[in-house]
Amino acid sequence: MGVMIIGTGHTKFGRLNESLYDLIIAAGREALEDAKIEAKQIGGIFVGNYSGGGFNNQEHLAPWAIEINPELRFKPCTRIENACASGSAAIKAAKNAIEAGEMDFALVIGVEKMTTLDTKGVTKVLAMASYWPEEGAKGMTFPGLFAQFALGYKEKYKITDEKFRESLAKVSAKNHTNGKYNPLAQMGKELSCYDILNLPDEKNPIIAEPLRLYDCSLVSDGAAAVVLSKEEFAKDLKDELVEISALIHTTDYLPLSKRYNWEFTAGKKAVMQAYEKARITVEDVDFAEVHDCFTIAEILAYEALGFAKDGEGYKLLDEGLVYPDGKWPVNVSGGLKAKGHPVGATGVSMAVLATRQLLGKAIGIQLKDCEIGVTFNIGGSAASNYVLVLKRVC
Amino acid sequence: MGVMIIGTGHTKFGRLNESLYDLIIAAGREALEDAKIEAKQIGGIFVGNYSGGGFNNQEHLAPWAIEINPELRFKPCTRIENACASGSAAIKAAKNAIEAGEMDFALVIGVEKMTTLDTKGVTKVLAMASYWPEEGAKGMTFPGLFAQFALGYKEKYKITDEKFRESLAKVSAKNHTNGKYNPLAQMGKELSCYDILNLPDEKNPIIAEPLRLYDCSLVSDGAAAVVLSKEEFAKDLKDELVEISALIHTTDYLPLSKRYNWEFTAGKKAVMQAYEKARITVEDVDFAEVHDCFTIAEILAYEALGFAKDGEGYKLLDEGLVYPDGKWPVNVSGGLKAKGHPVGATGVSMAVLATRQLLGKAIGIQLKDCEIGVTFNIGGSAASNYVLVLKRVC
Repeated sequence: MGVMIIGTGHTKFGRLNESLYDLIIAAGREALEDAKIEAKQIGGIFVGNYSGGGFNNQEHLAPWAIEINPELRFKPCTRIENACASGSAAIKAAKNAIEAGEMDFALVIGVEKMTTLDTKGVTKVLAMASYWPEEGAKGMTFPGLFAQFALGYKEKYKITDEKFRESLAKVSAKNHTNGKYNPLAQMGKELSCYDILNLPDEKNPIIAEPLRLYDCSLVSDGAAAVVLSKEEFAKDLKDELVEISALIHTTDYLPLSKRYNWEFTAGKKAVMQAYEKARITVEDVDFAEVHDCFTIAEILAYEALGFAKDGEGYKLLDEGLVYPDGKWPVNVSGGLKAKGHPVGATGVSMAVLATRQLLGKAIGIQLKDCEIGVTFNIGGSAASNYVLVLKRVC
Repeated sequence: MGVMIIGTGHTKFGRLNESLYDLIIAAGREALEDAKIEAKQIGGIFVGNYSGGGFNNQEHLAPWAIEINPELRFKPCTRIENACASGSAAIKAAKNAIEAGEMDFALVIGVEKMTTLDTKGVTKVLAMASYWPEEGAKGMTFPGLFAQFALGYKEKYKITDEKFRESLAKVSAKNHTNGKYNPLAQMGKELSCYDILNLPDEKNPIIAEPLRLYDCSLVSDGAAAVVLSKEEFAKDLKDELVEISALIHTTDYLPLSKRYNWEFTAGKKAVMQAYEKARITVEDVDFAEVHDCFTIAEILAYEALGFAKDGEGYKLLDEGLVYPDGKWPVNVSGGLKAKGHPVGATGVSMAVLATRQLLGKAIGIQLKDCEIGVTFNIGGSAASNYVLVLKRVC
């Protein structure tokens, strides 16, 4: 029994005037309208949110979602949290609810309102997604954790400083440039890797060696939503549909010290399981939206997804394979780097963008002849890993 | 297809030396051992936790659970949050995962470590489970919100001050006394309602008129865990089993101002749906563990569960129906009042206690000839509502 995405909603990402509450309502209503079903048909609502407590003093956020429509009163609303993968976690919970027979239709909303805090505050709240006693409490930030990946990878594969710096800049340049075409992106501008490499230090300071400002994703507000449907009902509603062919979740140790810092070990496992479940190989993948919270993460995602062998992910940028006209376009939306990264929204945003891409209604760059899209969403320093395979079906 | 509880674990509740991390491991290991299955058979772990961020600077807590056993590495771990009903929410997510065919066995852990903060800090973190802009931000606390219920109920049903005060004291006395027999309870002592009514103000001060100290549940650390199994496997493992006959979740508006303050409106709906799903009536219920976060909440729970008509719940205490030797013993564990209320653990704790009660292995008072037990767990000011019906099967 399959589950389909029959509706999508997506607010602008950025420093927004809308409150956490407004964002939920906006994305939820848009997805419901797009699904063309009545609110009362929704069996339950799943809210992906990382830290309403930390950013907005609002835990217990899920019940707010019934404000989307009076017909939703009494429907079960549940918050799911797995750091920056909370959005994918919410989709997973909704899919399970449908497959368990609890409901026929589910509304999933991913949301975060981060700009309520200053940079110091945001850094602290995000650090709570690390293993606090060993990492956050000792001053380790997320740029610091991903710098560990960057250093680990560079060392493991003996990449020169210059080449490595260039590769990271290429990821950043690609995603900034792609983001220019995404009307909902927080920022986007035509940039080459040379533009970035030539920025003076004060414009592109080191955040955590070797990661610089242009290697880091953004602090954002925003929400995204999808309506999921049991396959049999979806087919009556729409001619063109997007099926969830697989949604796999794997977990690795919370402390980075217990894992390799040169690969997404559990992410790789999730990808293998997802391809198997969806009965595809990497050759069938038409594009991917991946978790470039830092530029190094996108390179590790290439390897996890099988686009490159271990230690060769960075070469895809030289070969052009991950650009919009390449074999595996990655983050044509602009990615977390340019689209923005309201952390609880990100997994749902990826699903919305991939769905719209598959339906030929891309938000931003439209690729040609896409049938299968993959999203790769991680939480914390890749302790939580989600791989979603979406397929267009007629 | 049914889902069974095949293992339980429960730490002591109270001001504990164990960390948040220790508690997860202790409860999880105990439940796994009790289930008599190997860790590798677990398909996924669901962690109910209200505010690891607020109390412990630890969001993204779920991945920690793989530390329970090395065989759990890579298994999907998910945190579920719905305020003080996070534990029930986690059971629900696990049940769905099994019924969806994602896994055959699931481990559910509810946990909270609250005594890291002082009373002021705890009050603030708990207030984040209210609708913050209208409630928490304006100084409304949870005692304050439940005082609204107390005042609303008393006024609606024109109960005299004296009678109402006595009824609340009877709930408190019953639960304190029951808690005396629960070796894992935070506090328990033989108390009569007259003992409580005769306490001087300094020993039983007003917290939020009309609620006094002895009407409020405790600030606690603790964890509880259950192993859930697909029916077909459970029957091979154990002779006596406890089946989840129903687990219903309903949501009401987050702001209390949008709801009646004299009943648990959405809770009532959950109960009706749960009885229907389990194909039972209230007459079939042998006992209940209910959410006495404040004494008034237990009285409202009696009415939601159908033990009394609207406005007559408080009379059950006079009639003796809710005492261990009554028709519907309620909170023989001591309830949140005496057992303790580590908020994310509470829903799972209720399930553990009810399961053990049904199996004749009660933690504390053992009732006779029980076949069906119900738990009623709410989040926030009853915006989130869960009703679990458990049945002993041979």
